[in-house]
Amino acid sequence: MAIVFQGERGAFTELAAIEYFSGKEKAMAVAKWEDVFKAVENGRAAYGIIPIENSLGGSIHRNYDLLLHHDLLITGEIYLKISQFLLANKGVGLGRIKRVFSIPQAFEQCKRYFDKNPAFECVPASNTAAAAKKIKEENLLEAAAVSSMQAAIDYDLKILARDIEDDKENITRFLILSNKKISPRGTKAMKTSVVFSLKNIAGALFKSLSVFALRDIDLLKIESRPVRGKPFEYLFYLDFSGSAHEEAQRNAINHLREITVMCRVLGSYPVGSVAHPAYKKRRI
Amino acid sequence: MAIVFQGERGAFTELAAIEYFSGKEKAMAVAKWEDVFKAVENGRAAYGIIPIENSLGGSIHRNYDLLLHHDLLITGEIYLKISQFLLANKGVGLGRIKRVFSIPQAFEQCKRYFDKNPAFECVPASNTAAAAKKIKEENLLEAAAVSSMQAAIDYDLKILARDIEDDKENITRFLILSNKKISPRGTKAMKTSVVFSLKNIAGALFKSLSVFALRDIDLLKIESRPVRGKPFEYLFYLDFSGSAHEEAQRNAINHLREITVMCRVLGSYPVGSVAHPAYKKRRI
Repeated sequence: MAIVFQGERGAFTELAAIEYFSGKEKAMAVAKWEDVFKAVENGRAAYGIIPIENSLGGSIHRNYDLLLHHDLLITGEIYLKISQFLLANKGVGLGRIKRVFSIPQAFEQCKRYFDKNPAFECVPASNTAAAAKKIKEENLLEAAAVSSMQAAIDYDLKILARDIEDDKENITRFLILSNKKISPRGTKAMKTSVVFSLKNIAGALFKSLSVFALRDIDLLKIESRPVRGKPFEYLFYLDFSGSAHEEAQRNAINHLREITVMCRVLGSYPVGSVAHPAYKKRRI
Repeated sequence: MAIVFQGERGAFTELAAIEYFSGKEKAMAVAKWEDVFKAVENGRAAYGIIPIENSLGGSIHRNYDLLLHHDLLITGEIYLKISQFLLANKGVGLGRIKRVFSIPQAFEQCKRYFDKNPAFECVPASNTAAAAKKIKEENLLEAAAVSSMQAAIDYDLKILARDIEDDKENITRFLILSNKKISPRGTKAMKTSVVFSLKNIAGALFKSLSVFALRDIDLLKIESRPVRGKPFEYLFYLDFSGSAHEEAQRNAINHLREITVMCRVLGSYPVGSVAHPAYKKRRI
């Protein structure tokens, strides 16, 4: 059974997949987030994993949109502690670095470090592990990458600086996707994710949240996204506590359907916990 | 009096500034969004203008964060119709293009066009006008830029393809910022923006929205952002109809203060309308 992720080997999403599945599933890299959804839909992979929000940067909105456009179920979540490292080719010192490759979110997470080093030119890359791979493969000697410790191991790079993020509370939440329902084992606390669009009636958002408040169901997260083709109308993604199989939650969802144009349950799944990645030497 | 914007001449934000101020204010470009806030705070510019959301891509979260971290007031808004053009140096045909420069949001808006032209390598740039400027200044002959029609005029580039965005309902909302209160003239419909963080009590979000529903005040937008240092706690940015000077709105804000940890009014301002940019030849 394979799990598919976007990026290169050594990406934080791969590290999250290894933690979630205890290294038992084979992780396959694809180029785009959309490819993750497609691989699970057409059965090439049993599971997909996507980042959905970061404690500093917030939600990854593109993946919220993809959850809507594809018909997969969320079957789990995991939180991964993120630590950013400045990596360069061996023999390259900090003084030689002119350009630094990474994703904009990583630069944002390490804002204070880059403010202190204004001579570095920050150059966008498609993902953190791709940045590490690039400086290795092109043997760039005046460039560095902001990437994971695992990328340093995978691409045999030197660590110029470690834990360079501003805020040590840097955690990314990932969702596990499947094209079939998976009944969770054990009695773990559950949460449910739904997406809905509102009828154009007064107080529509308030009414949609009241279906949960009236049943003492905790709201865990709300996210709004634009409706395509209808400027400044919004879709809402909501996480709430409990499973869609419990009575109060089932009633709340039925109530929500009465007052929304569209309402879809994206999945009920065990509440995840925070994992610290275990870095290790491996063949890539 | 100057208005400051992020980017290069020909950026959509500059076009929005020209429309909002009818071309009467001098528009000054700065490198970073943060510089816009700083220039208005220290009085170097009377106004700042920032993009805050796009009808396809959604909110620009970095600017929500900057609204919180700086003490400016929102004094207006304008909606600008966005049309994306594929630009190249004169004499360069579509067949020669290998790389296309622009911002990720522009590639996202033109997804169908790039899906149909898979040979193009999409390369990230810091903004759309900077992409146009780059291919001009470096005289790149195998590269194009996704940028505005105004950038084609400003940088004397050829239009290879026009209106290449997937969805013609492509509109960006911009906010006008000032460091002093401006009393709007006339009797235009008003809206108010607030930001708040919730107390850790059951149904906190529901209660915060009820202060508006109970007073028949329409909610126009809700946006959540992470609280730094408190993983998976959120700040909420809310737009609602009416001015903070009206009685119901003032009472709602006072009620909101009772049930929130922090609550700040970001501004009351006239509801904006959609402008179509007027392109023109000019010296840059």
